[in-house]
Amino acid sequence: MAKTVGIIGGGQLARMMIVPAIELGFEIKVLAEEPGSPAKLAATVGDYTNLDHVRDFAKTVDVITFDHEHVPIHILETLIAEGFNVQPSPDALIFAQNKLAMRKRLAELNVPIPEWAAVSSVEEISSFLERHGGVAILKTATGGYDGKGVRVIRTAVEAEDWLASGSALLIEEKVDFVRELAQLSARNPSGKWLAWPVVETIQRNGVCAEVHSPARNANFEAASKIAETIAKGLAVTGVLAVEMFETADGQLLVNELAMRPHNSGHFSIEGSVTSQFEQHLRAVLDLPLGSTEATSAHAVMLNLLGPETLNTFSEHFESAWALENNSHIHLYGKGYRAGRKMGHITALSSESLEDARAQASATYNALLA
Amino acid sequence: MAKTVGIIGGGQLARMMIVPAIELGFEIKVLAEEPGSPAKLAATVGDYTNLDHVRDFAKTVDVITFDHEHVPIHILETLIAEGFNVQPSPDALIFAQNKLAMRKRLAELNVPIPEWAAVSSVEEISSFLERHGGVAILKTATGGYDGKGVRVIRTAVEAEDWLASGSALLIEEKVDFVRELAQLSARNPSGKWLAWPVVETIQRNGVCAEVHSPARNANFEAASKIAETIAKGLAVTGVLAVEMFETADGQLLVNELAMRPHNSGHFSIEGSVTSQFEQHLRAVLDLPLGSTEATSAHAVMLNLLGPETLNTFSEHFESAWALENNSHIHLYGKGYRAGRKMGHITALSSESLEDARAQASATYNALLA
Repeated sequence: MAKTVGIIGGGQLARMMIVPAIELGFEIKVLAEEPGSPAKLAATVGDYTNLDHVRDFAKTVDVITFDHEHVPIHILETLIAEGFNVQPSPDALIFAQNKLAMRKRLAELNVPIPEWAAVSSVEEISSFLERHGGVAILKTATGGYDGKGVRVIRTAVEAEDWLASGSALLIEEKVDFVRELAQLSARNPSGKWLAWPVVETIQRNGVCAEVHSPARNANFEAASKIAETIAKGLAVTGVLAVEMFETADGQLLVNELAMRPHNSGHFSIEGSVTSQFEQHLRAVLDLPLGSTEATSAHAVMLNLLGPETLNTFSEHFESAWALENNSHIHLYGKGYRAGRKMGHITALSSESLEDARAQASATYNALLA
Repeated sequence: MAKTVGIIGGGQLARMMIVPAIELGFEIKVLAEEPGSPAKLAATVGDYTNLDHVRDFAKTVDVITFDHEHVPIHILETLIAEGFNVQPSPDALIFAQNKLAMRKRLAELNVPIPEWAAVSSVEEISSFLERHGGVAILKTATGGYDGKGVRVIRTAVEAEDWLASGSALLIEEKVDFVRELAQLSARNPSGKWLAWPVVETIQRNGVCAEVHSPARNANFEAASKIAETIAKGLAVTGVLAVEMFETADGQLLVNELAMRPHNSGHFSIEGSVTSQFEQHLRAVLDLPLGSTEATSAHAVMLNLLGPETLNTFSEHFESAWALENNSHIHLYGKGYRAGRKMGHITALSSESLEDARAQASATYNALLA
């Protein structure tokens, strides 16, 4: 009989996982934080920090997986102890939740990462800054995403509020990178692992704005090898996104990890034989993974962020579609807020990255008009 | 703001319309006959033959459209009179519901159709049989689909039960066709109309078993012209499927019409830039239609019919996916019944129809193993 996948978190990632569940005939249930979430079609409302809520939800599904990495590890460990199927397991997920744990483990695996240190005092921060040219990245070990919990600092004074809060902190060298890449892959509990070609990600104001697939002239083999080492070394299941810096001398340094479908992989809905959302379902159900082959030579994804003036984008479909280009619009059904990820556009081209980008941009501009 | 599309009927067509609604951020609601329908994620339960149920549903959406053509015309006419937006309108839908009305109207439009007559007596039937080589197709004017309400007869005796029932009947020549084609197109209320390339449909036991897109060596222009004449002449909105016979001398004769996404168009999910399900939503919302260009030179769709022995197919995903071919499996989340349309497989090939068919067949066999 068809399996039921349970997703904790009702955001756009859960929403986009509903699509392959419908196509493949899997049952799907979502535990959402509030009514009216992007994933509301499949959602019940509950508190993912409440063991009883999460357990009650787990009882109705065959496997628990995630739209975000904020479920407390102790809750997931309790579920595991009680015999529930959680993918990825808390033993892996901890490395996506806690950047200190992640840095330690990646260092053990000899994965290339920026220089870093755990810090808990002004002295340790000052010392690290001195050794790294007077500038560094300070991060909270937990709770950061989309630029939150991350700060560029030049003096220890700038760390005082976080130090005072008692949050575990780490500091990292400010890598002089030429661009950022993201390596998407997936692994199932049986150990099968498969990668998409590495993509370039372009951030604006700390938020992913643009993704180019595949990344131009990238070291595909090195990027894929890093992801494989991490996926297998950390026993990740489901989709793993490895965000990396590429330096001027071509070195790849791992920045962040996400153990779920990821913004850098949205292009795969149209751009790959198997989308990251379908792959995540296959992987957490321990089914064979699907081909990650590209459907077109080039794909460009642009995030639709809410502009300052009210714009839910759907009111501009007519002008966007009048372009009759090869762009695909995705909206997440979210209430409007400036700066919010409201949707994305993916354009494909067999010709060139520039052609794909021009099409996506034209659609973007039509939706913003 | 995002529009809400309301679909009457909770079958697989409604289910497959949920997907583009999620992608494009349209709200979607379904009025299903019973709980646990294929479209249950978006469904409320109600009786589509009950005006109050349908009106209450209509009040919650911006446009009413359909998963099937069984909603009584008088209910839809009442909704129109009350100012609701119904696409296609009952003025068009009547020609998909009533084969007598359809034959009369297509004759007026000079659309090529089989020879036919309205019949209500043994004498009329015998007379038609005599003039057509002693064999003909008897049809009930309403209520037929998937081979139901259609009967090959050689004597008027075989019509006695239907005559006794008082059903309106028509009789048609038994066309000596070489194959069956289906021409899919869509039209929006503003009058924009767009066709996909005509496909070949292969029926077994009166049910669509297989679709080849595009049809090999077909008269694409003639097929498209017929569909355009019908779509515009009948003021159809949304997707229109025109089923046709192709005779040995290359003539195309219209057999049936459907005014909704249709089994012959399932290939378009992967095989076209815009699927018939997305196109239907765009059309009924009077938005620009999307490109019907093929994503691959050849597509083959096989229906997954429930075999005699219990098989819900999902238990065979592992062996089907182990093939690692270019097939896409779709399951409808239906309870098992032998002969029931449980899902379909679409395979694409840039090489040949044979290659696409071989891939789809391999997946089909794996799912039936």
